[in-house]
Amino acid sequence: MTQQELFQNIQRKQSYLCIGLDTDLKKIPPHLLTEPDPVFAFNKQIIDATADFCVAYKPNIAFYEALGPKGWESLEKTLQYIPKDIFTIADAKRGDIGNTSELYARTFFDYYHFDSVTVAPYMGEDSVKPFLIKPDKWVILLALTSNPGAADFQLLSVEKSADPEVQTYLFEEVLEKSQAWASADQLMFVVGATRTDYIQRVRRKIPDHFLLVPGVGAQGGSLEEISRLALNKTGGLLVNSSRNIIYADSGQDFAAQARAEAQRLQQEMAAYLQQYLPASS
Amino acid sequence: MTQQELFQNIQRKQSYLCIGLDTDLKKIPPHLLTEPDPVFAFNKQIIDATADFCVAYKPNIAFYEALGPKGWESLEKTLQYIPKDIFTIADAKRGDIGNTSELYARTFFDYYHFDSVTVAPYMGEDSVKPFLIKPDKWVILLALTSNPGAADFQLLSVEKSADPEVQTYLFEEVLEKSQAWASADQLMFVVGATRTDYIQRVRRKIPDHFLLVPGVGAQGGSLEEISRLALNKTGGLLVNSSRNIIYADSGQDFAAQARAEAQRLQQEMAAYLQQYLPASS
Repeated sequence: MTQQELFQNIQRKQSYLCIGLDTDLKKIPPHLLTEPDPVFAFNKQIIDATADFCVAYKPNIAFYEALGPKGWESLEKTLQYIPKDIFTIADAKRGDIGNTSELYARTFFDYYHFDSVTVAPYMGEDSVKPFLIKPDKWVILLALTSNPGAADFQLLSVEKSADPEVQTYLFEEVLEKSQAWASADQLMFVVGATRTDYIQRVRRKIPDHFLLVPGVGAQGGSLEEISRLALNKTGGLLVNSSRNIIYADSGQDFAAQARAEAQRLQQEMAAYLQQYLPASS
Repeated sequence: MTQQELFQNIQRKQSYLCIGLDTDLKKIPPHLLTEPDPVFAFNKQIIDATADFCVAYKPNIAFYEALGPKGWESLEKTLQYIPKDIFTIADAKRGDIGNTSELYARTFFDYYHFDSVTVAPYMGEDSVKPFLIKPDKWVILLALTSNPGAADFQLLSVEKSADPEVQTYLFEEVLEKSQAWASADQLMFVVGATRTDYIQRVRRKIPDHFLLVPGVGAQGGSLEEISRLALNKTGGLLVNSSRNIIYADSGQDFAAQARAEAQRLQQEMAAYLQQYLPASS
């Protein structure tokens, strides 16, 4: 999927919602546990109920991997089931030396047919580039994550100066260096909704790139704030919600409740698109 | 396995060799491809042939994951087959927000029974700690990797000074901060054999920790040099070799050739243990 196609979907659906499929056998409605593949049964109903209101699905690979080989089968069926016009994100946070990253890319792009993979930047250029060899496949690079530990390394200053405008944080160096590796047509960045203090610094470095934004809801980030500060001319945002949607209810009625919560977020987003989307020049 | 037990194995076998099980269907001897599980058939013969000469096995998870669900079955059988006194490393380079890292830990420690997992530090403390809740399970944290991209971020200065001794690189900050998260009994670091210029800085920060060292052989690192500079009182090194051993030969005779190459490395290591292992005080 191209950046332009993604923007068209955002306009058509009036939504930049990404739904995280963090499917956990301990949390899905108990009546599904008798199904032959409870994880897929749950995902299928969630997808049917919410596909009208989102532009991306993001399975968190840890949840599937933890179930052993059958978890990967559930993942494969889920990917086959997601409508083709919805962007798919393998939230896998991979990154390794070149020949190994190549294999990870093959796994997620060729075997499971994801549109994108989240990648950790610590190992640098040759660990990221193997994910970029197909022009329609994306890397979503970790920049400034939503968790408390982000402060340990991502917020270290790599260029210190008396003038705070000259100071450079590690996450800014990640934004800066990685722009030489791919264009905004293949590269997005993870920036947590809990990090809006830094969002203007982010948009100064990368005005045109999409951001994948976790941390709205359970982690305390504000959808209004991130939308106001970070929407750009092609939308430029995918805001993720996982638990609040998929576990909105734990009974027979879970899919309808998930749909209601997805719709509520979509309607909020429609208002922000109206209000904050910059006019195209 | 404790640090002390690992050291006992090193002394007993006169080896600090880790063998990387980067098992690739395109590279294994063609006669194995008719086996019901060619990956496991290959690993089994490699383990039988080399277990006398190594103290650790390190399956590179990318190679198994790329085969879909059946790759994970091969991995499970491989882990069950590795003798219990040999340390096992899931080379997975994971790391995510707390609840997700918890799941990755559960996968590798509870489902596949690995002793350790390689973890990327970018997301900080709460992404690493879930891997440390079991006292006999280890985190091997990326510090200074062997690939060219290591220079992009790991070698950035986070503390600049006219005095080079005061300058601090990002990888040193990783060594420093992570020591508050676990002791040398549960924490190792990845330091590439291609990075011996920095090895004294590493040993100054972490004199007691084990290092997992890739990059000897194909990538050009010297086994003599890393052994001379980094062996400590409990050994403190696991030097990895993958392709040079497991693909030493591609014919019927591959296991015997792998054994010969593993033995050659073990004998070199025995000499370095004699020469460079500091006397215990």
